[in-house]
Parts: sequence; C-alpha cells; structure tokens
Amino acid sequence: MIKFAFPKFISMFETDIIIIGAGPTGLFAVFEAGLLKLRCHLIDALPQPGGQLTELYPKKPIFDIPGFPSVDAGVLVDNLMEQIKQFEPQFSLAQKAVSYEKTEEGDFIVTTSRGVKVKGKAIAIAGGLGSFDPRKPELENIDKFEEKGVEYFVREPEMFRNKKIVIAGGGDSALDWSVFLADVASSVTLIHRRNEFRGALDSVEKVTELKHQGKINLITPAEVTGLIGDETLSAIEIEKAGEKSIIETDYLIPLFGLTPKLGPLSDWGLEIEKNAIKVNNALDYQTNVEGIYAIGDINTYPGKLKLILCGFHEATLMVQSVYNRLNPGKKFVLKYTTVSGVDGFDGTRKEAEKAVVKSID
Amino acid sequence: MIKFAFPKFISMFETDIIIIGAGPTGLFAVFEAGLLKLRCHLIDALPQPGGQLTELYPKKPIFDIPGFPSVDAGVLVDNLMEQIKQFEPQFSLAQKAVSYEKTEEGDFIVTTSRGVKVKGKAIAIAGGLGSFDPRKPELENIDKFEEKGVEYFVREPEMFRNKKIVIAGGGDSALDWSVFLADVASSVTLIHRRNEFRGALDSVEKVTELKHQGKINLITPAEVTGLIGDETLSAIEIEKAGEKSIIETDYLIPLFGLTPKLGPLSDWGLEIEKNAIKVNNALDYQTNVEGIYAIGDINTYPGKLKLILCGFHEATLMVQSVYNRLNPGKKFVLKYTTVSGVDGFDGTRKEAEKAVVKSID
Repeated sequence: MIKFAFPKFISMFETDIIIIGAGPTGLFAVFEAGLLKLRCHLIDALPQPGGQLTELYPKKPIFDIPGFPSVDAGVLVDNLMEQIKQFEPQFSLAQKAVSYEKTEEGDFIVTTSRGVKVKGKAIAIAGGLGSFDPRKPELENIDKFEEKGVEYFVREPEMFRNKKIVIAGGGDSALDWSVFLADVASSVTLIHRRNEFRGALDSVEKVTELKHQGKINLITPAEVTGLIGDETLSAIEIEKAGEKSIIETDYLIPLFGLTPKLGPLSDWGLEIEKNAIKVNNALDYQTNVEGIYAIGDINTYPGKLKLILCGFHEATLMVQSVYNRLNPGKKFVLKYTTVSGVDGFDGTRKEAEKAVVKSID
Repeated sequence: MIKFAFPKFISMFETDIIIIGAGPTGLFAVFEAGLLKLRCHLIDALPQPGGQLTELYPKKPIFDIPGFPSVDAGVLVDNLMEQIKQFEPQFSLAQKAVSYEKTEEGDFIVTTSRGVKVKGKAIAIAGGLGSFDPRKPELENIDKFEEKGVEYFVREPEMFRNKKIVIAGGGDSALDWSVFLADVASSVTLIHRRNEFRGALDSVEKVTELKHQGKINLITPAEVTGLIGDETLSAIEIEKAGEKSIIETDYLIPLFGLTPKLGPLSDWGLEIEKNAIKVNNALDYQTNVEGIYAIGDINTYPGKLKLILCGFHEATLMVQSVYNRLNPGKKFVLKYTTVSGVDGFDGTRKEAEKAVVKSID
C-alpha cells in the first residue's frame, strides 16, 4: 500500500531516508533502500509521484531506459511504483521541502511548505530540475484567492464535483483536465488567449467533441483579467475582442505551465554550481553537508549527464553509502537480486525458482 | 541486422569503440554510442550475446533493473538486442580478446583468440566477471581433441546434425542441450556421475520423457575416463560401477560449468585490484591506459557495486568520454531521447509524436 500523507493527522513522520523529489530517481531509491532494509519518505511539490514524467509528458516515449526500446513516461512511473510498493514508501505530496534542522542525535528533520515534518537519518535530494512552480497569471489579488478558488494543479479531482470551474490555458494540461473534469464538474469553461491549442491530436479532438456536446464551454481568444469574491472566489472577469464580461465560477484553474526552481533548497548551505548541487561523485553523491546527498538531474559533477539511467545508479550508490554510515563495520552490500531474492516490508517475498535435484528414472 | 563475424572472410574489422564483453553493459553501450554516432564491435568468449544472463540464468528473474518489477534475464538481453539493433553492432563471438596494439595514428587493434583483428578508436572492457572458461574434465589428450570432437559450448547446433553425440554433466546446460539436440543428432547419450540432476523442474521432466521415448540414452552414475581417436574423436571410454566400456561417438560435449577468468586481459598493463580493473570513477571509468575503459562488473573503484544498473551508467559516461576525446571542442551531449528522438544507422528514426497546433471549431 502506498501511503499518502495527510498533515492534519500526523505531527511528525519518521523514516530512514528523506527523499526530496518523487521523480524516477527518487522512486527507484526506495527500491534499493528497501533491499538494505531502509525505509523512505518522499516529499514532492507536485500532487502525484513521477516528477516531470507524469506532469509534463506521461504519454510520450522515452528511448534510452536500458532494456526498454521504447517506454511511455507514464508507464515507466507506473512500473517504478509497482517495483517499490513492497517497500511501503510514504509520500508527502503537493508541498515543498522548505527547511531542515539537525537533532542532537544527528537525525534530520525536514519541514515542508504545508508544515509537515519528516524525521530521518539522511536526506537525498532527488529534485530533478527543481520544484515545479506553476506560471501564475498576472492578476491582482491572485495570492489572496490561492486555495480559495484558484488552483494551479488538479490535486484532487473530487473537490470539483458539481462545481463550476474555469480552466485557462492552451496546452496539454488545459485540454486533458477539461476533458477529465467535464464528467465531474457541473460546468467547465475553457479559456485560451489564442484560437489554436497545442497538444496531442487525440486531446484536441476530444475537446472538440465535448464542445459540440455542450459539455465544455469554449471561449477563445480571450483572457482572464480579474478575480471577484469576498473570502473565496465567486466570479472572474474576462476580456474577449476588447469587451469585458463576468463569468460566475467556483474555481479558476490556470494551467500555464511550470517553471523549475531550486527554490528553498538554495538556502540550505549546499554548494551550488549553475543551479545544480555539487556532489562527491567519486564516492557516494554526498553534498558538502554530511548526510545530505543529491542524486539525479539536480546534482552536478565532472562528466555529469542528465539522464534518468544515471539517476538510478546515483540513487543506488547513495543508498549503500547511507547504510554504511548508519552501520559502521557491517558488511551488507547490494547484490544481484536473482540470487538473494527480495523481501518486502509488506511481508511479500520475490525469488527465482529454485533448481530441483532429482534423479531420472 | 546484427552482423556476426566470420573471421575467414574478413581480415580486419573497423569500428569506433571495441567492446570486450557482450553482456548487458556492453550491449547497452552500443545504444548510447549510437546516439553519439559512434559504432561498436563486440567481442565475447561465449557463442552468443548476453554474457552471464544468457549463459547462466536466462530463465531466472532479475528484480533490480529499474522499471522492471521482475524481468527474466533472457528477456532483458532480448530487449537490449532490440534496443540496439538500429545501431548495427558487429559481433565477434566465441573468441577471447587476446592482445592489443596501438597504431601510430593512435588507433587500437585488438586480436582475438581466433585471429580476428578489430581496429577502433577506443576500447571498452565490459568483461563482467571475466571471460567464461569451461571447466574441463581431466582427461588425457583432451587438448588434442578440442574442436576435433570435443566441444565445450554448443556454438552452432547444426554441426551436430545426424551425428552421434555424448553430453557429460548434470546441470541445466547438460539437460537443456540434451533435449534440444535430441531432435538434431542421430543419437544423444547423457552421462552424469550422479543419479541426481540439478536443474529447472521443466528440464528434468523433458529429459525423463525423452529417455522413455528412447531419444536420449541416459547413463548414470558414470564418468568419461578416456578419449579415443586418431585425428578426430571416434569413441570415448566410460566407467560405470567399476566397469569400463567404450561408446562410439562423433562428439563429446562436456558441460561442467564455467569459471570466470580475467584471462589475457591481465597482461594488458592495466592496474588490477582483487581481480578487477581499476578505473577513474570520478570522471569516465577510464583505466590507467588512455583510451581503454572498463565498465560493469569487471571494474573497481571506491564504492563500486556489481550491479547491472551501475554498468548501464558507466557505459554511458564512457561513451560520452570517448566522444569528447575524439571530438575536442565539440559539444554533443547525451540528452533526453524524448526530445531528440533516435536516428538509427539503418535509416530508421524513432521520435515522440509531435503536438498539433489546431483551432477548435
């Protein structure tokens, strides 16, 4: 079972490795950690695991994952989630890792932007290009309405059930969420400043169909120009062909893309070079702060390549290093799983079929 | 098309990277090299690609390949062969890389145990645990009969068509080849020094069935004690329950397992530590000899883990380093293939479907 974190009910999570970033590198680290009996808690700014792969191009193929002549990004994430589930990772999603402190016992406590605290014995930053911040439209008072009618991500589709929603944007996200929410919301209005949409042919065709069925109200070319409401959003002002009008709505979902930012991590005292975190690649991908590692696209070192397969390797060496730091003198080394098998934290065991020893009569 | 090398017809192959070892690491290197427009020629002591995976446990699952909750070793090799075929690798199989020389132009020429010469601009040793040498039975004159009736591998099943063969051994190889060759040879005798065989249940059952059908002649517990013949093998002497007897045969195939050995590579002037080749892991997995790299299980460095996924990473950084050495000043860096696509040497192109830009009416 994957456990998603609900900050309201738990004051502090405890784990072995706090992984910041739930992209492919962070996810795979859970597997290797599990082999060494270490538990992981993942924090990610996005509302779902998978990082860029899920958020930016879930239906696009990747050709350079070893052993996959071609694999859609979303499928790779699904496979990784399946591969790690036996190690029961915890997730704190839709929130950024903001700060860390070190306890007297040498543990780390990371606090997120939603006030969640996670305590662990090491930190692995697997933050990809950084946390993905939504591009916000320039609207007066937009900060005031955030989480009070303005949502930059669809974290939980059910919150829009039987609500009036307006989606703004012209890319895949705007198209796909309009299609998905047409069955959930009481009304869906899609606003884009151009007539042309840019997305998968399939998505464009579905929106066209739903428009003709009256399930999506399409307004183009038009722009959102104002937000109206007291405590929460009640309507938006739009401008089309020079004319302003008001649309009543419960939610505005601006989907104008994401910009990656190193964000709060840049204040953690880590050595940064060209927007990436320097690590000791000659050993274990540790940063200049002992116990804090950086793996995947977010780190840099001589010869660094920003490839998913490199992140997998870095994650593995990181995990082994954490184990060695926590268990000085013990020799427990990652090995071929065909021989050792895999014991899940959930009680499952995977192993190769044993050879039989049998006489032939 | 995969090109297998026939030494009789070609005096010297030319390539960019000479890869010694056609296991998963060596195979994947072909893919990354292809992305940078570099060609590869692989040399392996075994008669087929895949290294240990194909030779030792093709039907056993591996659990720690990223993105595969479980994948049979043989399937992983098939996938890798499919992934690299567009880059038209050349193979010189069933022969060891014996020596290398450097030309005045700085190229390398590797000579194999069958006299094949391969010229290239860099060498990547991806030799796994070393070249797999067959465990030879202690029989007088066995050297004399090698390739004259005594075969340690089934390189080409067709050479046994309508011949009398004796297979000696009690493991998976002995069982599986007995089954396979029962349809090819005119007679198959399987000799094992114990009554019990050790292998997959399925293989044991098939041999039992073929024995009952009279297609496999089973002699246990028995041992081969002598080889008889002038130029080529014509019969073997065996001992069963203290009694000797003679069996006429065209071939003896002793399948007593393989021992990995560093072999001739240990004389190449490379720094060796604990039977592995030392490399500069802080940069590009190059050995102490410029232009010679070692990747995968055969290398060693601080923090080294002998895992296939680490070999994939090392292969990739090796390839980028070779490219940089050959093209000083040029910036051509391995990147996400989703964006760039993949152009095969065979004229094929793989790429993600482009987004459409379309207005919705």
